[in-house]
Formats: sequence, C-alpha cells, structure tokens
Amino acid sequence: MTPPKKPGDAAGHRLRAEPWYLPLGDEIEIFEAAYAARLPVLLKGPTGCGKTRFVEHMAWRLYRQADTERRTLETPLITVACHEDLTATDLVGRFLLSGDETVWTDGPLTRAVRSGAICYLDEVVEARKDTTVVVHSLTDHRRLLPIEKTGELLDAHPDFQLVISYNPGYQSVLKDLKPSTRQRFVSLEFDYPSVELEAQIIGHESGVGAQDAQRLALIGAKVRNLREHGFEEGVSTRLLVYTGQLIAGGISPRRACDVAIARAVTDDREVQQAVADIVDVLLP
Amino acid sequence: MTPPKKPGDAAGHRLRAEPWYLPLGDEIEIFEAAYAARLPVLLKGPTGCGKTRFVEHMAWRLYRQADTERRTLETPLITVACHEDLTATDLVGRFLLSGDETVWTDGPLTRAVRSGAICYLDEVVEARKDTTVVVHSLTDHRRLLPIEKTGELLDAHPDFQLVISYNPGYQSVLKDLKPSTRQRFVSLEFDYPSVELEAQIIGHESGVGAQDAQRLALIGAKVRNLREHGFEEGVSTRLLVYTGQLIAGGISPRRACDVAIARAVTDDREVQQAVADIVDVLLP
Amino acid sequence: MTPPKKPGDAAGHRLRAEPWYLPLGDEIEIFEAAYAARLPVLLKGPTGCGKTRFVEHMAWRLYRQADTERRTLETPLITVACHEDLTATDLVGRFLLSGDETVWTDGPLTRAVRSGAICYLDEVVEARKDTTVVVHSLTDHRRLLPIEKTGELLDAHPDFQLVISYNPGYQSVLKDLKPSTRQRFVSLEFDYPSVELEAQIIGHESGVGAQDAQRLALIGAKVRNLREHGFEEGVSTRLLVYTGQLIAGGISPRRACDVAIARAVTDDREVQQAVADIVDVLLP
Amino acid sequence: MTPPKKPGDAAGHRLRAEPWYLPLGDEIEIFEAAYAARLPVLLKGPTGCGKTRFVEHMAWRLYRQADTERRTLETPLITVACHEDLTATDLVGRFLLSGDETVWTDGPLTRAVRSGAICYLDEVVEARKDTTVVVHSLTDHRRLLPIEKTGELLDAHPDFQLVISYNPGYQSVLKDLKPSTRQRFVSLEFDYPSVELEAQIIGHESGVGAQDAQRLALIGAKVRNLREHGFEEGVSTRLLVYTGQLIAGGISPRRACDVAIARAVTDDREVQQAVADIVDVLLP
Amino acid sequence: MTPPKKPGDAAGHRLRAEPWYLPLGDEIEIFEAAYAARLPVLLKGPTGCGKTRFVEHMAWRLYRQADTERRTLETPLITVACHEDLTATDLVGRFLLSGDETVWTDGPLTRAVRSGAICYLDEVVEARKDTTVVVHSLTDHRRLLPIEKTGELLDAHPDFQLVISYNPGYQSVLKDLKPSTRQRFVSLEFDYPSVELEAQIIGHESGVGAQDAQRLALIGAKVRNLREHGFEEGVSTRLLVYTGQLIAGGISPRRACDVAIARAVTDDREVQQAVADIVDVLLP
Amino acid sequence: MTPPKKPGDAAGHRLRAEPWYLPLGDEIEIFEAAYAARLPVLLKGPTGCGKTRFVEHMAWRLYRQADTERRTLETPLITVACHEDLTATDLVGRFLLSGDETVWTDGPLTRAVRSGAICYLDEVVEARKDTTVVVHSLTDHRRLLPIEKTGELLDAHPDFQLVISYNPGYQSVLKDLKPSTRQRFVSLEFDYPSVELEAQIIGHESGVGAQDAQRLALIGAKVRNLREHGFEEGVSTRLLVYTGQLIAGGISPRRACDVAIARAVTDDREVQQAVADIVDVLLP
Repeated sequence: MTPPKKPGDAAGHRLRAEPWYLPLGDEIEIFEAAYAARLPVLLKGPTGCGKTRFVEHMAWRLYRQADTERRTLETPLITVACHEDLTATDLVGRFLLSGDETVWTDGPLTRAVRSGAICYLDEVVEARKDTTVVVHSLTDHRRLLPIEKTGELLDAHPDFQLVISYNPGYQSVLKDLKPSTRQRFVSLEFDYPSVELEAQIIGHESGVGAQDAQRLALIGAKVRNLREHGFEEGVSTRLLVYTGQLIAGGISPRRACDVAIARAVTDDREVQQAVADIVDVLLP
Repeated sequence: MTPPKKPGDAAGHRLRAEPWYLPLGDEIEIFEAAYAARLPVLLKGPTGCGKTRFVEHMAWRLYRQADTERRTLETPLITVACHEDLTATDLVGRFLLSGDETVWTDGPLTRAVRSGAICYLDEVVEARKDTTVVVHSLTDHRRLLPIEKTGELLDAHPDFQLVISYNPGYQSVLKDLKPSTRQRFVSLEFDYPSVELEAQIIGHESGVGAQDAQRLALIGAKVRNLREHGFEEGVSTRLLVYTGQLIAGGISPRRACDVAIARAVTDDREVQQAVADIVDVLLP
Repeated sequence: MTPPKKPGDAAGHRLRAEPWYLPLGDEIEIFEAAYAARLPVLLKGPTGCGKTRFVEHMAWRLYRQADTERRTLETPLITVACHEDLTATDLVGRFLLSGDETVWTDGPLTRAVRSGAICYLDEVVEARKDTTVVVHSLTDHRRLLPIEKTGELLDAHPDFQLVISYNPGYQSVLKDLKPSTRQRFVSLEFDYPSVELEAQIIGHESGVGAQDAQRLALIGAKVRNLREHGFEEGVSTRLLVYTGQLIAGGISPRRACDVAIARAVTDDREVQQAVADIVDVLLP
Repeated sequence: MTPPKKPGDAAGHRLRAEPWYLPLGDEIEIFEAAYAARLPVLLKGPTGCGKTRFVEHMAWRLYRQADTERRTLETPLITVACHEDLTATDLVGRFLLSGDETVWTDGPLTRAVRSGAICYLDEVVEARKDTTVVVHSLTDHRRLLPIEKTGELLDAHPDFQLVISYNPGYQSVLKDLKPSTRQRFVSLEFDYPSVELEAQIIGHESGVGAQDAQRLALIGAKVRNLREHGFEEGVSTRLLVYTGQLIAGGISPRRACDVAIARAVTDDREVQQAVADIVDVLLP
Repeated sequence: MTPPKKPGDAAGHRLRAEPWYLPLGDEIEIFEAAYAARLPVLLKGPTGCGKTRFVEHMAWRLYRQADTERRTLETPLITVACHEDLTATDLVGRFLLSGDETVWTDGPLTRAVRSGAICYLDEVVEARKDTTVVVHSLTDHRRLLPIEKTGELLDAHPDFQLVISYNPGYQSVLKDLKPSTRQRFVSLEFDYPSVELEAQIIGHESGVGAQDAQRLALIGAKVRNLREHGFEEGVSTRLLVYTGQLIAGGISPRRACDVAIARAVTDDREVQQAVADIVDVLLP
Repeated sequence: MTPPKKPGDAAGHRLRAEPWYLPLGDEIEIFEAAYAARLPVLLKGPTGCGKTRFVEHMAWRLYRQADTERRTLETPLITVACHEDLTATDLVGRFLLSGDETVWTDGPLTRAVRSGAICYLDEVVEARKDTTVVVHSLTDHRRLLPIEKTGELLDAHPDFQLVISYNPGYQSVLKDLKPSTRQRFVSLEFDYPSVELEAQIIGHESGVGAQDAQRLALIGAKVRNLREHGFEEGVSTRLLVYTGQLIAGGISPRRACDVAIARAVTDDREVQQAVADIVDVLLP
C-alpha cells in the first residue's frame, strides 16, 4: 500500500498539460471577465456536456498561462463532487486526533480560499444545505470564510474564485438553489454541441475516423429528439465517445451503439428500440 | 498552508474601514435608539437588498465612532450565516480535546456575549430550533446566557446586542419564527432602494458611468414588476452591480444583462425572455 | 477570553435583588400552597405575559424570604429553556473527558434535585420526549431521579420543586403533554393583565410617563382583539415595554409603535395596517 | 455537589418501608402465582391508577417478606420509565472510558438479571424497538440475556422477573406491542378504583377528612363519565390526592378543584366548564 | 457485580442438555439434508410456534451427536434477535478502545463464521437493511465474509451454517425480504401443532395433567379460528403453557385463561369476550 | 479466536482457481473491449442469474491469464455488496485510532484504485447517494479519486476498472441511478439462461444427473412464466441448484421443489400452489 500523502498537500488538479476544449460560444470571454472581477460563476447544463472540462480549461488559461506568480500555483483547481451527505464541515475542515492532540485539517474549500485556487463545487444543490450557506460570505463584498470550529476569520486570497454547477433538467423543488444563494453568481448556460463540433470531439477523444465520428454525432442528435417517447434525458457526449472507443476496439458499430447508447441511457424497452431504430437508419 | 490562528482570536468583523452605506429612511435612528436601550433588533427584507451591509455600517457607527472604550473592541461585529444544520452548540461552544484534556471553546454567540460585540444571526429561521431558544434569556430582562455544557451562567457584557434577520418572502409555515421568539425584537423592514438611490449604489460599487448605472437601476425596477409571469423573486442590487462590473470589464451590456440578470435569477425560459425584452427596450 | 467557571458552580438564578412582580389574582397563594406540599406546578399562558418573572418572584419569596436555611441557597432557581433538541441527557448530566478519565457532570435538573432548588422547564413540550419521562419519578410519591448513566438513584432534596410551562395557544397535537405527564401537575393559567395593571408595568419597566403607559396598554388590549383579521397571537407585554423604551429614547410614538408592535408581531400587511389604525385612533 | 455513587451500586428501589397499597381484586394472588413460575407480567391500565405502586407493593411482599435470602437483596425493584429515545444499550449497558481503558457498565436490566431483582419497564411501547426485542430471550424457556457488546451470555438469576406496563387508552397502531413480544406475558388489567376505595386512598394520602375525601372521589367518578364532551382521559387518583393536599393546605375546595382537576386535565374551555359544573353540584 | 467474561468467549448456546422437541413433520430430515450441503435455511411461521426451540434441537443433533470433532464446539448455536436498530456492524464486529489502542471485537455472526457454529438470525426482516446484505457472500458459492472495517476476507469454517426466520403474518411491504436475499435460502414453513401434539407439549412443559392439557390445546385451536372477529393473530403455544403453569400454581382454570390467554392476546373487549365464551364452553 | 489479518492485506477475491462460467452471448468480448479502453461497465439483470460469477470469471481471464505483471496481483477483484447504510467513507476509507495516533485505513474502493484491481459494486443503487458521486471522477477522463479526508488526490492505477450492477426489476423511482452517474457506463444486460444452458449449470453445480437437471431447468422456465399469477420475480438459477443438491442428498424431488422453489420464492399460497402444479406435471 502506497502511503497517502500528508493532508493538504495535493487536493486538486495539478493541470500539468493543457486540457483540450472546443469552445461553443463566448463562454471563455465571459468567464475571463467574471474572473477579472472575481465574480462567482454558476454553470448550468445537462450531464456529460463538458462543464467539468471547461473549468479545467479555464483554470489552465487563467493560471498556467498567467503572467503573474499565479502561474506557479501547484493546484489551481480544486473540484468537489457534491452529494446528499456532503456537509459544510467536509468543505471547510475538521479537527483530527494526532498523537495526543487534535490538529486542524483544512477542507477543500478552505485550501482553495487560502491558496488562491479556483474551487469548483460540482452539482452543488445535491449537498446539504449548510454547504450553500457557507459560501455566502465568500460571494459578496466580504470575500471571507468564517471557520466556526476554530474561530478563524479567513480573508480570501486575491486569486480565489468560486465556481458551482447544476443541472436544471432534474432539479426538484426540494433541491433548488435558494434565491439568496443563486443571486450571488454570474450564470453560464451550456448545452450539447452542434453535430459538427460533437463529431470533432468524438474523433479527437475516441480515435475513430471522421466518418464514424460524424455518424455517431448524428445518432446523438437524433436520440436527443426522442421526446415523443417520454425520454427526458439526452445521450451525453461522453457515451458517444465510449461508443467510438468500443468500435475502435473491434466491436461492431451496431453492438457498440447497443451497449454504450441504447442500454446505457435507459432500461425502458420501448425507448431502447427507438434508439436501435435510429442506429439502423444511420449506420451502413 | 498558513497555520490557522488560535481559536477565539478573530471570529467577527474587524471593521478597519468604514463600510459604505446609503440610508433608505430612518433605519439608522431607530437602530441607534434600540441599541441605546439594548433592545434586540430583527431585520426583515428580500435577498441582496443590503441588510448585511447595514449591520456592518451600524457596528462601525456604534463602536468605531463611539466615545467610550467600546471604540477599541477588536471585533465589534460577529456574523453567523444560519443554515439547517446549525445547532445551539455551534453558537454557544463545545469541548475540544487538546493534549489529554478537553478544553472549552466559546462559539460565536458566546464570544459576542462576553466581549460586548453585536452578534448578527443572518437568516435565523434556517437554523435548528434549539438555536432560537438559546437566545431567549439574552433577549429579555435577564440578559444572560446559560451554557448548559459547563454549567456557567454568563451575564451579557453591557455593550452586547443581538440582531437577527429573515426574508419573509420565502418562509414556509415550518420555518417561521415562533411568537415566543419573535415578540422579543424591534423590527426593521427593508426593501429594494428607489431607482435614484440604486443607481448611486451601482455606480459606486461597479465603476460604470452614471448613465449605465441609471439604466441598470431601471432594468432592476422593471424586472421586480414581473409578477404577471409568476416570477416571485426580484433581482437583487448585488446582481445589478455584477452586471455593471462585467460591462466595466468589456462585456457588451446586453450580454452582461443576459448572464448576470436573466439567467442568474431563473431557469424558466419564459421569464428569461421577459427579462430580455425589458433589457431590449431600456438599453440603447 | 475570560475563562469559564468550573462546571456546576453557577447554573441558575442567584436572585440578588427582588424581582418586581405585580400579582394578577391568587396565583401567589396557590403556588405557596403547592410548594408547601411540594406539588409540581404547570404554568399555562401566552408568550410574554410574565410567567418567567412570576417564577423568579416566587423563588425570591420562598427562598430569600424563608425563615429556614433555604434562605442561603446560592441559586434557588434553575431555568431551562426547552427546545426540540433538548434531551434527557442534557437535563440529567453526562460524562466528560478530563485528563485521562471521564468525570460525571450534573445537568441542570440534577443540580436542582441535589441542592433543593426550584427547577423551571420553560416550554417543556418543545423538548424531546425522553425529557418529559425523566421527570415522572420526581413528580409522584417517589420523588427520586434515577441517573441511568451512573446507576445512581438520587432522592430529591426536601426543598426541591419542579415547575413547567407551556403555551396552549400554539401547541399542535404532536406536541401536547401526554396525560401520563400532565396529570402530575397543579395548573395555573395566566393571561395578559388588565389595562390598568399593564399600564403600571409599562411605566415601571420603560420609564415613560403615566399617560403614555396608559395609551400603550390600551393599544395592547385593542390589538389582542384583532381576531377578525385572522390574527391569533396577541401582543406581549414585553413589546409594549419595548415601545415605551423607544419613545423614552426619542423615537416618535407612532414610529415606535410601528417597529415594536405592528411589524414585530406579524409580516401580514393587512394585520400591520389594522394595528396602525388602532395606533392612529389612540395616539394624540 | 455530593459525589455520585459508583455505577451499579444503587439503581432501583431500596424499599425500606412497606408501600401502602389497597387491593382492587385478585391481582396480588395472580402476581404471586406468576412470580412463583417466574412468568413475565404485563400491567395494562390508565395513567395514575396505581400500577407503579402495585409493583412496589409486590416487590415488598415477594422480597422483604420472603423466607429466603431474597429478603436481603438491597434493591429488589429496578424501574425504568421508557421513552422514545430509550435504546437497548440504555437497558443492557455500555462501555465507558475510565483512565485509559474502557470499562463495561451494566444497564438497569442487566443489573436486575444479575442480582435477581424485579425489572419494571414502565410504558414499554414508548421505547425504541430494539428494547422490546432484547427481552425476548429473557421471557421464554431460555431466560438468558445476550450482551452483544461484550459477547457475554448471561443466565438470569433464579429470582429475576420481568414486568412491563402500558396504557391501551392512548396507544397508536405505530406504538403497539408486536404479537411476538406480547404473547410472552401474563396480563393484568387495572382500572380506577370504586368510589369507596378511592375515598380511602384520598384520605390516606392527602390528610383530608372522610367527608372531603368522599366528595373528591365522587367528583372523580363523575369526571370520568364526561365522554359526551369528547373527553377521553379520566382524572387520575393522583390528581384527586393533590386536590386534597391543597384543601388541607388552606386553599378553598372549589379553587383546589379548579387548579388540580379542571385545568390540570385539559386546556379545553368547554371541558373545564363541564368539570366545574360537576364540582358546583357536589361541593357544599 | 460479577465481572463479564472476555469478549468472544461465550456468545451462543452451550447446549449442555438436549432441548426437548416434538417433530411436526419431516422438518428434521430437510434440515439435515440442507446442513449436509451447507444450504442456508429460512424458517417461516407465527410467533411462539417453536422455531427457536427447533433450531436449538437441530444444533444439539448436528453438533452434540455428531461423530466429528464438531461435537466439542463449545457454543454450536449463536442466536441474534433482530430489531430495527440492529446494524451490520453489530453482527460483524467493531473496534473497541482498550488501553491506548483499538482492538477488534468479533460480532456474533463473525464468531459463528470463524468457529463453525450455526448462526440463527431471528426475525431478520426487522433488522436494518445492511444486515441482510452482509450475509449475501456467505450464502452463495463464495461462503466468505468480508469484514470491511479491517479489510479481512474471512472464509467460512466448513461447519458454519446460516439460519434465519421470519413471520409472514405481520410483514409489511416495507419489511419484506428482497428477492436477492430470499432466493438464497431453503424454506421450511411452521404452523401451530395439532391438538394432540400441542396437548403433549402443554403437559410436558407446564406440569398440568393430561385432561387439562387436552382442554387447553382445544381452547388454543378454537381461539385460532376467531377470524370472523377480526382477530389476525392466534394464541401461541407458549401462552397455553403459561396458562397451564398458573393452573398448576393454584389459579382457577377460568381466571388463568383470562389473564394468560384472553387479555394477553388482545386489548379488544369484543375479542376478549369471544375468547371467554370459548373458555366457558370448553372448561368444566 | 484467530487474530484478524492487518487492515488492507486481503479484501477481495484471491481467485486461486478458475471460476466456472458458461457464456450466454458475446458478454465476454464486450467486457474485454471495455476493459481494454478501461471503460466502466454496468451489469443489469435479475437476482441469481450469474452476474457475480461473470465478474469473477472476467477477473480470472483478465488477470490470471494476462501476459503482463497484472497476472500476479494478489486480489484482482474487490467486491462490495451495497446496502442502504453504505457510505462513501465505507468505500474510500477512514481514520482509525491506533496507539495514540490516528492511522488512515483505505476502504475497498481505494484499495482497488491503488492496486489496479477490478472494483465491483454489487447493487449500487442500494447504497447512500454519496457513494455514487464518489465514483464520478474515476469514470471520466480524469480517472482520479479525491480522498477528501486526507486531501490526497489519487490517480487510478492503469489496470483499475470499475464495474457496478443493478436489478432493473425492482428499482423504485427513489432508487434509480441519476443520469449523471448512469451515462458513465457501458451496459451489459443479463437474463436467465436458456433451458439447455441452465440444465448444464444445474448438473455441474449440484451433482444431479442430466435428466433431473433437465427437469429442474424446465421447471425454472415454467415458473418464470407465472406472470398471470401476479408473480413478478422468477426463480433464480441458484435455487434450482439448491433443489438439485437436496435431491442429491436424498430428499424426494417433489419435497425438494417444495422447500427450495415453491416456498422459497414466495409466501403467497396461490403462487405456491401454481408452482406445485408445474412440478406435478414435470416430475415423474
């Protein structure tokens, strides 16, 4: 068993290489202007459309390509995948017993606030409510993080920025952002890319040829139109890439579409058949 | 990692500079009279209308400009953003293990009660019920805080005052103040500022020119009238300031209104379009 | 930070001066007879009508004015404000880690049972159910407190008495006293004082003159009659005193009534207007 | 603060004097036969009708008057008032930290099982479900208590007996005994005593004269017939005794009935009036 | 206080004498065949019909009468009475603090898996869901218990067998076995014995004569037919034995049937009367 | 008591012998292609149809038969049976007290991520929601596991793969995979084998002859058609194997079908009878 590194050393993305990202509009300019004023940003959009990749790309641009010492920050992006049991304590930090005294350990949000990284809270509405409140004083003129357990009042590093995401498609009333939280963020909306752009992405990521990539992007677009079958979710770009990878690995295109698209997006036999019909028409 | 300061050193606002605040009515006089009699104060009002800034301003006036030794209190304002998991223990304090004995650590409310600061419980109805009861004996003739875990009976410092806030707009029946709590506070109601005052605020905080600030304030007023579209929440002054900051950062006014107003306040396409229509009419 | 006193030293009211109390009927005689037989007492009544002050007054009479050694008991009254998270352990006591052993620490109920104080559980139905059961063996012929965590069986001090309160006005079915608990208490019902008595109280507590005090008491009585506006709660004597304090502090009577009565008792615009109409008629 | 005794020394009733008890039927014979065969016993009946006193009386008869060494058992009766948060761990025992090792501490049930006392679980259906299951192996041919936390398998002392009680009057479906628990007990049903017997009890316990006692017993019987007013609960014998004590303490009989009967049993004005009418007719 | 034995020494049945058991059908042969193939067994049946006694009897047959070294296993049967708060940790084991290190302590299931005992989980559907999943890998070809807290992967002792029970009569939809758990067990269904067999059991266990035993068995059979009175549960064999014991102890048969049958099985006056009518007819 | 091995040594399948597996289609080829691209795999299918055995078989093929050093990995497969109380902490790891310091202990997922094993989360939708989110960053281009408690950012071993399973037959809306989780997996659907294949399996696993195995497989197929009786679940292959084992152990085929099929799959008398009718027809 490799020994774990010491707490606090390395939580985040080191971003040693540039994350490949194909812009869909002016999202890069808006994000740069928001970052310049250190305005918090909310990313909205369906699953698997590239929000996580976009944040990684922006962290690369704003840190690795900066002309300030920010360029050398070891972990410019700290990502937290939120879930129903994530608490403010998980974000901010806790006391741990070490030897015969308790030692404070920063959580991922506190590490970002101290070091000047971007903190990205993915699907923030999934988390417990105390987590959304803990970011309030970081997202107004105060830019400070009160650490209640230690009594510390931490002023945010000048480079710190907060980014959150959520998917409006399957939020319930119970899991919506409160207006008092929501009205603290500039909002960027994402959607699936156009067929041309998505074909480029599929080709780049899976290694299939241009014709196969084009066909898979077309299948993706058609599947996303299956509303009349009561199919709410589209197919993600990620699954189209998986399909390409299976084809590149020797699985027949029809079978690859079956296991990585039709059966992956739903358990409903009728929807699976509707997807199979689309594949039949579009594959040679 | 910068080592955290010792518990209890610094939780609160140090208020080194005067917080800018534009009065909307006689709220400063009422607050001063309430403070003179040490009456607890409840601030009601929508999100982002300036309640937090008002309390900071009053703490500056009543402490930094006082002619008593109160002037030198290091942290005259201790703010707690309440949430569903905040307990009385979080407010009052807890025992922590240190070396081989447990050491009592004051919570933010106890620190304010001991030192004579203003304690501001923001959105208090969000907290767990024990937190509202814990303030009862601080808000009547007794002015004392029983710390059940230590058996201490703490008399409040003569300068201590309690301030709480809540937003009547989205309180449910389950999250209302009980009459036995509510009838312990003088109540100040806040609303969004007039167009003229809000334009001043936007100009001061975002750096845009007077004409742009005036236009954004007008957009704000119109958006708050969108009741016929089922839009309950207005747009906060804070978002109008964000919009000004993006414009000042080079984003076109229309696009800035799009990402910092229309898409920030709602996910509803129809309401977003109604906001866009207002922007179209009011921007050149 | 002032160091907290040792656990167990000082939880309760020291009652160094006589608490001012104006009797409304024969409540003092009934309480004295109940105390003489050590019968438990239940105080029922609306918020802010003086129940807490009454118990303090009785503790002064029965201890500080006693002709027994009871007179010298340091803390003759131990009050616990009950809330939804209060458990029997909070009342009875717990083990705390100190150095390398755990030390038992009495809770407020146990301190009263040992020392012979009055224990006052305010709004007892708010507490968790185990708290009501823990008082059962203290409120029948047994007069003993089993401390389950230590195995101790504590006989109550001969002077110990239990007093509880609740507000029948806003109890729900879920938060009612069980008959097996309720039928262990002599019950005293409280209501708001008459206009004449309330004027005396307002004058005494706020420092306004007799005429202003009389007007505020009249306003209180009229506001309590606002049933036709769907207003269930009256205004507490405490808020009328606050209003007097603001007037004494230089705020105009109308504005003082606005912030300390109309907006303090409700968020409902219609009820606020009805209160304002009453104020308009009764103030010069 | 008197130091608490060591864990395990004294939880239970020492029964130094004979508890006064007036038999209502053959309950003493049945209990003795059940005890002789060590059959578990369930006591059913309304609140305040004497179930607790009966168990104390039987413990006196079966231990203090026994002709075996059982006579010298220090605490022949261990009573646990059950509540919604009582767990099997509370009954069986737990590990506590002492110095630098954890020490097992028996709970009240385990103390009774080891020492051969009667364990009386009052209002057992209020407790958490694990508590009812923990008694299963004690109430069949096995008569053993598995202590899961230590792995010990404790054979019950030959004198051990389990007694439980509940009040069928206000049990809900959610809080009923499961048949697999219920069918392990011989059941004794209790009801309020006849007027003649109750007058004897009131006289004995409160010190009022025979005529007053008779009147209070008659009032009790009439109040229990108030079904047509939607009044489900009767008045307990205990409250009638309280009334007698207040009268003996100098309070007028009408006022004593008001505070210890009418207002004690209900908050409903109509029921209170109906009780007052009964009192008016029966008091001179 | 007798000191508890060390953890792990003795949880289970030592089975020093043969448990008396009267077979109702071929249940002994089926169980022996299942044990020979080490197939897990599920016992279904109403409360008090003898499932626990049957498992004890089989453990005696398969261990104490075995011709292998299994014969000498000190505790061949480890029974766990399941309840709503029983967790997988309770079954598998936990770390306990001892001195200044934590020591792993096997739970009852782990002790059975290590030592080769029968583990009997009584009323398994009452337990928390993690307990049913923890037995999955023990009940298929793997026969292993992963102890997640230590990382140990424990291969079951060749003699280990798992037996569970439940009562289909009062299972709700919420508390049913999941098919993925259920389809891992051979199922034996139990019902109450015939009148002849039950009379034998009553006579053997209570000591009453053959005629009384026969009458009680007949009463049992009739009571179980009271479906038309909305009486779902029958009377257990155990209660019939209790009745016999009270009769043997001198209580009149009618009164014994009253307290140990009629009032023991129900609180419903009408059902109690129906039972009394049966008793009247069948007793002399 | 055999001492448990050290944490982290051995959680998983050591796979010393090849697990017998009969392919039903191209599932082996698809899995190999997915593994080659390290795509996560979701196995869907009813209980007891062989999903667990399939993963064991694939782990044998991909590790024990690999021509890389992967061949020597001690535990190539780490299986976690998910349940309602399984948390992300259970999967990722926790701090444990050892001597006088806390030591980090990897959970089963972390062990697989570090060592390059296959991690199989069986019935993943049963687990708490934080567990599904914790796998997100392992199932996209990042292939990393953030260990929030230590701050470590663990890059997955190149050989690591994640496999999950669920049973669409009894998932409720509350327990469905979120699209943001689901669209990260290639999906393989399993169903019961054909009669011919299932007869082979039954013969191989139970030791009965070919004719008996064929009959049992036919019974299985017929029972799975009992939809018209409201019987949703089929009978698992595992139960058919149990039936064969009982027959091989001397129990008559009819009785073996009764206890291992009819009574094992349901408590419903009508469905049990329908199964018995099928058995009557198909057995000699």
